[in-house]
This record gives sequence, C-alpha cells and structure tokens, in this order.
Amino acid sequence: MTADFSLLIKTLLAAPLQVAPQQQIISDGLKSYDYVELVRRVERLGSALNRCGIGQGNVVAVMDWDTHRYLECFFAVPMLGAVLHTVNVRLSPAQIAYTIDHAEDDLILVHTDFLPLLNEVMSLVTRRPRFVVMQDDAAAPLPETSLDMVGEFETLMAAETGFAFPDFDENLRATSFYTTGTTGDPKAVAYTHRQLVLHTMGILSTLGPMSASNRFHRRDVYMPITPMFHVHAWGFPYAATMLGLKQIYPGRYVPDNLVHLIGEHGVTFSHCVPTILQMLLTCDAAQQVDFSRWKVVIGGAALPRGLAEQALACGINVFSAYGLSETCPFLTVAHLDPADEGNIDARLKTGRPAAMVELRVVDPNMEDVPRDGVGVGEIVVRAPWLTASYLKDAAATRDLWHGGYMHTGDVGRLEADGSLVITDRMKDVIKSGGEWVSSLTLESIASAVAGVAEVAAIGIADVKWGERPMLLVVPSDTGKGGPDDVGVLRAAITAAYRRAIAAGELSSWALPDRIDIVSEIAKTSVGKIDKKQLRVTVTGDGELTPVS
Amino acid sequence: MTADFSLLIKTLLAAPLQVAPQQQIISDGLKSYDYVELVRRVERLGSALNRCGIGQGNVVAVMDWDTHRYLECFFAVPMLGAVLHTVNVRLSPAQIAYTIDHAEDDLILVHTDFLPLLNEVMSLVTRRPRFVVMQDDAAAPLPETSLDMVGEFETLMAAETGFAFPDFDENLRATSFYTTGTTGDPKAVAYTHRQLVLHTMGILSTLGPMSASNRFHRRDVYMPITPMFHVHAWGFPYAATMLGLKQIYPGRYVPDNLVHLIGEHGVTFSHCVPTILQMLLTCDAAQQVDFSRWKVVIGGAALPRGLAEQALACGINVFSAYGLSETCPFLTVAHLDPADEGNIDARLKTGRPAAMVELRVVDPNMEDVPRDGVGVGEIVVRAPWLTASYLKDAAATRDLWHGGYMHTGDVGRLEADGSLVITDRMKDVIKSGGEWVSSLTLESIASAVAGVAEVAAIGIADVKWGERPMLLVVPSDTGKGGPDDVGVLRAAITAAYRRAIAAGELSSWALPDRIDIVSEIAKTSVGKIDKKQLRVTVTGDGELTPVS
Repeated sequence: MTADFSLLIKTLLAAPLQVAPQQQIISDGLKSYDYVELVRRVERLGSALNRCGIGQGNVVAVMDWDTHRYLECFFAVPMLGAVLHTVNVRLSPAQIAYTIDHAEDDLILVHTDFLPLLNEVMSLVTRRPRFVVMQDDAAAPLPETSLDMVGEFETLMAAETGFAFPDFDENLRATSFYTTGTTGDPKAVAYTHRQLVLHTMGILSTLGPMSASNRFHRRDVYMPITPMFHVHAWGFPYAATMLGLKQIYPGRYVPDNLVHLIGEHGVTFSHCVPTILQMLLTCDAAQQVDFSRWKVVIGGAALPRGLAEQALACGINVFSAYGLSETCPFLTVAHLDPADEGNIDARLKTGRPAAMVELRVVDPNMEDVPRDGVGVGEIVVRAPWLTASYLKDAAATRDLWHGGYMHTGDVGRLEADGSLVITDRMKDVIKSGGEWVSSLTLESIASAVAGVAEVAAIGIADVKWGERPMLLVVPSDTGKGGPDDVGVLRAAITAAYRRAIAAGELSSWALPDRIDIVSEIAKTSVGKIDKKQLRVTVTGDGELTPVS
Repeated sequence: MTADFSLLIKTLLAAPLQVAPQQQIISDGLKSYDYVELVRRVERLGSALNRCGIGQGNVVAVMDWDTHRYLECFFAVPMLGAVLHTVNVRLSPAQIAYTIDHAEDDLILVHTDFLPLLNEVMSLVTRRPRFVVMQDDAAAPLPETSLDMVGEFETLMAAETGFAFPDFDENLRATSFYTTGTTGDPKAVAYTHRQLVLHTMGILSTLGPMSASNRFHRRDVYMPITPMFHVHAWGFPYAATMLGLKQIYPGRYVPDNLVHLIGEHGVTFSHCVPTILQMLLTCDAAQQVDFSRWKVVIGGAALPRGLAEQALACGINVFSAYGLSETCPFLTVAHLDPADEGNIDARLKTGRPAAMVELRVVDPNMEDVPRDGVGVGEIVVRAPWLTASYLKDAAATRDLWHGGYMHTGDVGRLEADGSLVITDRMKDVIKSGGEWVSSLTLESIASAVAGVAEVAAIGIADVKWGERPMLLVVPSDTGKGGPDDVGVLRAAITAAYRRAIAAGELSSWALPDRIDIVSEIAKTSVGKIDKKQLRVTVTGDGELTPVS
C-alpha cells in the first residue's frame, strides 16, 4: 500500500546494483572496487556519520580532492537527510571561513592536504564544528592538530557494518555550495533530493538519445575534470553511477597524471573548463596518449575556436554545454547531427535546451525576442532542478526569480535551429538607443587586430542614447607607443569594425564612439576584467592610465 | 519567486518546440503537420473542450484509431486537469459499458467507425455523457444519431484560437484505462501527471544511453503498433514527442498498410506484441519493403525464438521488453552489448531493469531468491510510475501492493548479469514439495514434440507434495487418435522431458505425473488457455473430453 515513490538520492543506487554490480570504480592511487562495494561503503559511511550524531538538519562539509571518498559522501551525507556542503578549497581562507559559518557546518571531513589551509580558516570561524580527517594511508598516525577531531574517515568506517537509510520528503535539501561574483560575499545555492534525481534523469534523457558521436552511454568510461566541489562536478558522478559506468576519480588535478589516466583506463567521457583542456593538450604526457576515444564537454566559459581546432586535431570529440552554479548546472548542450561531426561551429555553440528545460531569450519586459539568430536578450529559464533561492538572501533571490523565471544574467540569441549563442554578460552589455550591443563581439573583433594585446568594451552614459560603446585597448608593446602609433592602432581597429559592419556582422550603431589606448585594464581578484571599475574610471570618478 | 517546477504533461511540449519545431507528424491519410502546429492544435482542442465544460474533475473518453487526434487528446485532456479515459474498443459492448459507467465519463470523443458499437454500448450504460464525433472528413454531414452530440471534433477546434492551460498539482490523475483478467469485471488503473512525466524520462534515460543498435534516439522515425488505448501505446508517443521525432500514426491497423508505411516514411522504431509482428512479416507487402533500419520492441508476451529468427533474417532489429498495464508499462528492456547483436538469446530475455526501477524476485516471505539464473520467485517492483491503486477496488489494491512492492503476478528468475527471464504467471505456477515448477517450461518442451498441436500444464492437488504437475495435450490430428497412437505420443513427450532432465534444463521432480490426451483445451473469451477452468475440470468438478 505504499505506491508513493520519493525521488531520493538513494534510489539512484538501485540501478547499478541491478545492471552492473561488478563494474569498477577506480580512485587513482587509492582504491579500486565495484558497485557492490560502493554501496557497502556508502552504508558504512552513513552508519559512521550517524554515530557522530549526523542526521536530518545537520550540515556536513567536505574538503577533499576528487576521490572515491568524495563520491561516497555525494551519496551517504544526503541519504542521511543531512546537507552536503562541498567546500570550494580555492577560495581565500576568509571566504571559506564565511561559508563554514554561513552554511552552519556541523562536521567537516577534511583531507590531510587541506589541514594547513583549514587551520588558517578556523581562526576566522565563529562556529565550532567537529572534524573527521581523511588520510590516504588510514594506518598513518593522526596528524597533530588542535581541531576537535572525531577520528579518521577510513578507521571510523571500518568499525561499521550495514545501515538502513531513512525515508523522508524528496524536497529535503541535499547539497549546498557557494558561488562567488565579482563583488560581495559568496552566495549559497542549494539543491534538494528531488532536484538532483531529476537533474540526473535530465542528463541521461538528453545526452543518451543524442544521435551523434558526442553522446553519453552505458559503455563510456567516465572521469570528472571539473572539481567535485563545483556544482557536484556538473552532476555527472550521479549520472555515471546510475548508469553503472566504469569511473575514474583522478585525485588532485595534475595535467600529466590526468592525461596518463585517460590513456591507462581508456577514459571516453569527461567535462572541464577550456583552460584545463588547454593545459592537458600542452602537457608532456599528451604526446604519448591516444585521445581518439575521448569525448569532452566544455562548460564554464566559451570554447575558443582555436582550442576546439587543436582538440579535434588530437582526435578529441569536443563540444560545448552551458549552465550555471544556480542551475545544477545542466541547461543546454551542443547537438551535433551526424553531418555536423566535422563542423566546428556546431561544437562551439552552447547548443539546445536539455530535456525538461524551458529556455527563453527575453527583452526587459520578459517578451521573447525573435528566434532569428539576430535578436539578443537575457537568457531566462525554468527547469525541475534550479536553485530555489540564495540561502539567507531574500533580495538576491527576488532578483534571481524576477517574473517567474530564473535570470541567468547571460545575454544571448537563439538561432532558427534552436541553438543558443551567448553574446555577453547582462551586466556588461551596452544598451544604446534601445538596442543591445555585445561587448564580447566588440572585444572579439578588436582582439584580432595586429598590435592589440588586451581589450575591454564598456558602455558609457550618453544623454541621447542612454549608453554608447567605448573601447579600452592595451597595445602589445606599451613601451613603444607614441601618439602616431596610437593613431595608427586606433585607425586599424576602426577599420576592422567598418569591415564587420559592411559584412553584416555588426550593427552600424555598435561602432564605439571612443577608443582609448591605455597601459593596463583593471582586473578583479580572480583575474577577470573589472568592467564595473572601468566604468567608474572612465566616467571621471577614477583615473585612467592613458598611453597617449 | 516560483522556483517550484511541477511535473505536468504540458512541460513535455516545451522540448520539441525548442529542438525540432519543424519536424513532421504524419497521420496516415489524414494530416501532416509540424510540432508548432501540434501545440497550436492542442491549445485549440483544450479551448474547445473547456467550452464543453471540461476541466479538473471531469473524465473524457476517446474511441479512435491511432491518429493525430488521439495524440492531441494525450496532451489536451490531461492538460485541462481532466482525466483521459482511453477506451479499449476491443472489449465486448457490455465490458465497454461497464468501463464508461465505472470511469464516470463526462464526454466521449468517438470516431464515426465506432458509432455502431457505441450505440450498442450506450443501451447498457446508466451514465449520460455527451459526445463529440470525429470524422475523417470534417465537412461531411454529421451522422444521424440519438446520442447527445456536442459537435464534430475538427469543427469545434476550428472555432477556437489559443488557450492557456492551467497549473495544478502534479499528483492529479491524468489518464485511466481498464485491464481485463480471465475473470471478473475489468479493473481500472490510473496514472498521474508526475508518473507519466517520470515514465517518459525513464524511457529516455534507459533506451537513450544504451550502447547497442537497439537504442532509441533523436533521429529515429517512430510509429506505434500497440494501440494508443492500451497503456498509452506503452508511453512511447510521449517520449517521441518530447524528443521531437518524426512520428507516423497509422490509423487502423491493417498489416499491408503498416508495412507500407514503414517503407514509405523510413520508420526506424516501433513496438508491438509478437502476433502483430508475425502478421506483418507474412503479409503481402512484406516482400516489397526493406526492414533493415527498423527496430521493434516486443512486449505483451514472450518473443518466440522462431519469430525472432524470422525477424532477424529480414534485417529487423528485434528485442524484448517487459511491463504491465499496472506499470505504465516500462519495467525492463533487453540490453544488448555490441557483442550481443547477433545473439538471439540476449534479444529474447526481457532484459534488465529500466532507470529508477527496483525489481526483485522474491519468495512468498518477500525474501530475495538467489540471483543465480536458477532460483525462481514472484517479480515485485517499485518505480516512480506504478499505478497506486485499482480504482474503487480496495481489496485488489491491497493484494497488488502487499508488502510495499507491486506484485506483478509474474514468476521469473534473475541471471547473474541482471537479466530477467519470465517463467510463468503466478497463478499458473505449479508448487510441488516447496519447489516451483514452471508451467511454461513444461509446455515449451512438450510443444516441440512431433504430433503435439496444443498443450497445457497445470498443477493438481496432491496430499504429499501440495501440487503435482499434469499435462493436457491435443494431438495434431485428433480424428486419427486411437489408444495405440495415444500411448506413443505420451511416451514421446515423456522421453522429451527425460532428455531435458538429463540436460539439466528441468528438475526431475517437474516430470508430470499424468499426461492426458484430449480433443480440446478450454479457452477464455480472449483466446487464452483457461487454466482455472482446466483445474476445475480435471479434479472432477467438470468434465474432460478424453480422446482415449
């Protein structure tokens, strides 16, 4: 009489036990076991955490490399009814401390490599969580620490046998992590059991039935190359586990080792950001490895054409996808038709919406812009797996969900075939005379001009047009630049824009009113161009460093 | 601020509009249109039904062939919040009348071909629903009828423009239909919006990521050959629509025309019962059509080896799946590995559980039997899309969900690779000395003996063993049978069993104690062997018709 079926994370573990119990999960240098053992260890971890007092209402943080331990935490922590807080170990100590207090962590599972960082962090934390240390050699003596240590991960698990995970409401929060903008404190997003299960089915329902070679299927060998602390490694560990795939967890990301693992284990499916792919292709080990069976989803930033060409030349099946920390993250993926296999443009597009994702490109009144490959607007979405709120931040949540759709903050256009092309960030777009000018397009054209090292396009206030585009350019050799050189460079850039306008690639009103040649362009702490600061500077509240 | 995302049937229509708006849906001889038009027509149908007073709480029945109209009803009726009652037009008039009263139909959409049947049915119905007639030629005069007719389907739709379908709870009932056993009134199963959406994702999450050639993908051309009134044509019209596939609706099932449509439209994916496939392969048109791109899921009954061989010889990619009316229906599907493509055994097995399906084979105490390819037990399941109840039948519902799992009433075994092999119906299995003897296996061995036309294995009460197997055999030429022939035939069957026992294919205790040669075997109204009646007959309460 219990026909109700809750979409709980534990239900994802039924499938591999039924279809691939003996398939291997390999944690590089640490462990290799099958799905029967995975489930047994998840139960023992659940039992150990339960003995530490962890259950519904508690928060368990993890600071580890991408290991089998992290995969076990992906399941055991939420299956207890607790929240898994995946700590971004790349944040500053002060930011990590903020997230530990904000998330209200009760227990922190920390690999020995992160203990020095954690000691620094804890001096800034108000809350008093307890700790479990993860050691690659469980038999090694526990490190000396003043932290309130419960014990060692493997040793605690060894003392346990089975565990019957409880049932609860599928809308219970399962995971939480922090996303950082250019300003302000990190913001917490959160996902429920239901959302994570539906996201897993969404990945499989979209990447499984694709007709071309870039699909995800039961004979793939999976290795994440997006950290597990970052949006659950884009959700693929859940999907790979549900399919019962052979999985490789690479530990710390060392390019030569990642490439070596691809060769050694015959990895066929990964995902990463463009810069990581660039590092893998240029590392020493890349010369010795056959990449021809490897599919790679690129997200997090646009896939540059040059990198795509380089990857294809190595035989890598590279393609784009799109999502945000706020979207769990899967929103779109490049759909190749068999005829598109060799078409780089199709691989660069962020693709078409995933199953169950409703994606619109809208004007400021939330009206759809024409789906004609020209009209641009903000990308807004609805899907069964979007974060419902920024935790403890009602104002940011209101902005995020304004008008009943989640606002991605990205600007783009839809092509006639349904493909999405992202053209800008909402906060960087230049609004001139009611039309949107893409700062990315202006920058892309100027960056191809000889003598240009760096470029930023921003909008500056204009009485008649609202905003008008202007360009800041760092020449490739700033020392040499005199007034004549500056004039030549400025003319060359303007000529490039006029050619783009003549070719119909740029609207005539997008031609920048002003091109400043400068010695440097302001950056944020994470190295991105700080357009907010640039806008302040050029409008007179700050100070430019003009070359001429 | 509305991050909640309800799993409503209307959300399935977002995907094709985004990824395949111009893809064609062809309703043979009637209409051909794209997904933009499908959605427009669903809105107009919703508006027309709404104008008839249909909304949440109402029941709309459909009696039609497999047409675009039926597909539109699959969406528009539940999207209004009403229940779609898919009428099984093959039931007797009295049974159809029972279902109309039991379902509490408010409106019946009926194709002109079924008006004579309906007139007969309505004389037996207490309830007074209204009617909409469906005509292939909308301009034809309305048929003369005493039914309370609202109007003609196409004409009513023509008067409408758009419609904004309401939001409601995803657990609202969306569809209902009737399943008939060998005895008693038809029983009503029902599915909610949530269940149908999750079933759709379950199909795509399972059949999409399969690694072998029998998978379901975005470039398939889909045509149902299981009636749409029967478990929503196994749910594939929803899955095909969500993928944005080219779809062919064949109207009335005429073997030569079905085969012709496969050739004309390049159909690549269908599903049917074995007898229909047999009819298609032997019809006249089969000689002229290339079947080499056609994948066919076989369900509803075991795929006979001979038929599978015949289909493979025609180039048909044939494979098995398993489910019930009570399971929406998808439970398992044959997983071929690329190495299994030519392996008929792999295609005959009912396969491995679908994504999100937990399938167990249990003894009467609900303990798992060993997964060793030998132990048999009842197949019980949990999944997000099982009928929660038989409507208005609490006793049958209690039996169905006894012990927290849905009881399929089927007996089978799990092989080490997770494949399910069905060996019997629970009610037909013979329980001898605590062991289960498969009536299907006994029948299969005997049916291969020369001179055997028909065979039924049943259990008869036994003081010592509980039950003992006995066999009823109709010889291929009953007129000729004298006592000598009967003895020879009985000896040949016994010899076949002894060979099977020697080969380890049959347990020694399974050898039937008694083999009766008879002139006929009792059948139910739908042509299945009536084992219940046979058991009554052989134990003396009825009368056998012995040849000897």
